[in-house]
Amino acid sequence: MKTIVTLALTVLTSSQAILIVWSKRAGRYEYSVTTANFLVEALKCFMSLVTLYWTWQTDGHTDDNRLSTTVDEVSVYPIPAALYLVKNLLQYYIFAYVDAPGYQILKNLNIISTGVLYRIILKRKLSEIQWAAFILLCAGCTTAQLNPSSDHVLQTPFLGWMMAIVMALLSGFAGVYTEAIIKKRPSRNINVQNFWLYVFGMVFNVIAILVQDFDAVVNKGFFHGYSAITFLMIFNHAASGIAVSMVMKYADNIVKVYSTSVAMILTAVVSVFLFNFHLSLAFFLGSTVVSVSIYLHSIGKLQR
Amino acid sequence: MKTIVTLALTVLTSSQAILIVWSKRAGRYEYSVTTANFLVEALKCFMSLVTLYWTWQTDGHTDDNRLSTTVDEVSVYPIPAALYLVKNLLQYYIFAYVDAPGYQILKNLNIISTGVLYRIILKRKLSEIQWAAFILLCAGCTTAQLNPSSDHVLQTPFLGWMMAIVMALLSGFAGVYTEAIIKKRPSRNINVQNFWLYVFGMVFNVIAILVQDFDAVVNKGFFHGYSAITFLMIFNHAASGIAVSMVMKYADNIVKVYSTSVAMILTAVVSVFLFNFHLSLAFFLGSTVVSVSIYLHSIGKLQR
Repeated sequence: MKTIVTLALTVLTSSQAILIVWSKRAGRYEYSVTTANFLVEALKCFMSLVTLYWTWQTDGHTDDNRLSTTVDEVSVYPIPAALYLVKNLLQYYIFAYVDAPGYQILKNLNIISTGVLYRIILKRKLSEIQWAAFILLCAGCTTAQLNPSSDHVLQTPFLGWMMAIVMALLSGFAGVYTEAIIKKRPSRNINVQNFWLYVFGMVFNVIAILVQDFDAVVNKGFFHGYSAITFLMIFNHAASGIAVSMVMKYADNIVKVYSTSVAMILTAVVSVFLFNFHLSLAFFLGSTVVSVSIYLHSIGKLQR
Repeated sequence: MKTIVTLALTVLTSSQAILIVWSKRAGRYEYSVTTANFLVEALKCFMSLVTLYWTWQTDGHTDDNRLSTTVDEVSVYPIPAALYLVKNLLQYYIFAYVDAPGYQILKNLNIISTGVLYRIILKRKLSEIQWAAFILLCAGCTTAQLNPSSDHVLQTPFLGWMMAIVMALLSGFAGVYTEAIIKKRPSRNINVQNFWLYVFGMVFNVIAILVQDFDAVVNKGFFHGYSAITFLMIFNHAASGIAVSMVMKYADNIVKVYSTSVAMILTAVVSVFLFNFHLSLAFFLGSTVVSVSIYLHSIGKLQR
């Protein structure tokens, strides 16, 4: 199960990045991102309910798969969605200090923050070799994304660095907190857990629509700028969102980080064939470091 | 002893690179390199003799510190010098295929060739983690040297790659063979071993002068283009050459490779202060990978 969900996440994340490149190439990126995010949450909610219905038909209703919940159980569910909302709102402000390619580079701080919070909050230990592997993963991913203008990032003002670090912490905290919620009651049906997570995801995305895109939605309509690719991306996002939840249930945040890093490399390789991308020397070096990191992570596990 | 010679090698290699930059900045690089190389070998020979004389004064003559040798002992001593000569001659031809910064990048293949030949010829084993560390060392050093034009290296023609690989193998083989020679008789005084190595170094450098710089030496004189910095560089080269021999005697080629990699990073950091160099993001990432590699190398040793 762990292997299947990890592979699914890797493939979905890769195809997600490819869809983004494709949609940008087609020149269609004028829809409001907040409405798309809302639809992703709604679709995930719907998919959870469909799967749940199927479970009820085969296994019947049990204490672990009933949809109704207690205040005690559900009270922590809004937290990850709220953290993501704050992070997404901050994202609009950080671009005053860093350009988009620079932000891609800074996003690799997520790897470190996830590792640190995983250790502190979930109190799970990584071996010394696994820590070394994690630092390498961060350095390798960043190296693979280097381009001739990357050095601009070093000129990021102090406030930009602070925001990048806060965003990395928010994102890492949301991931680790989701894992804590899902693993708190291991016997609980994952689709019920997902349903409640996504309900709050919908609620917080409504807030994001109101804050960021209220005018555009009122004047141009909810679905303005949508194309077939947009719906494909929404479907893909929803599927990879569910894969992330599955990875949290059956594996952990560390596996998630490795999976998305491998997806980044896969995406670049596939893009060579699809979009005639050129791979840089930095990409080869970064991919080598990421590969060694994966190897060390598995070696480190055996020796624990 | 191992620590002292390793530190000495690191410091000498760093200051060597700084002297090269300094001499280039001063616009003085018009002396013939072959005559300088000959003087380096001659100086090393002289320094070995001086130290030997001092040893004879304190310890008296023994079987291990007498200068005279047998054909059987001395017959393998010309091999490293001959390999270096071939490598240096090839160096002139590779620039038809690769530019100088590209060659600096390709030189990192030396790290891999040294590791492989160390394993094959000296039959010394590295642990799995140490192999991973060695691959990381190569990737990290290359990353640290990346600059916006580095991607040219990927366009190196096949013949250029072949020459770079052959040169890396020659250089790795010379290093590993020197270690084999020096360690074959551990009780033998290192200065006697050095003396014979350097005698053949002088002989083969005379050949290099005849092949490459005969006209320049005849027309402009042996010391044409020499400056104070040139003599400083020769002295430094001689000292670091002796440090390399010491590392071969008391440590090994792996330590030598790590030592010169650390020297590369030290050089860049010192250059920031001396020459107002700017460190790139690639340099930070590469240095991180090299640091983790050193850590893993020492961890790997403990677990063997």
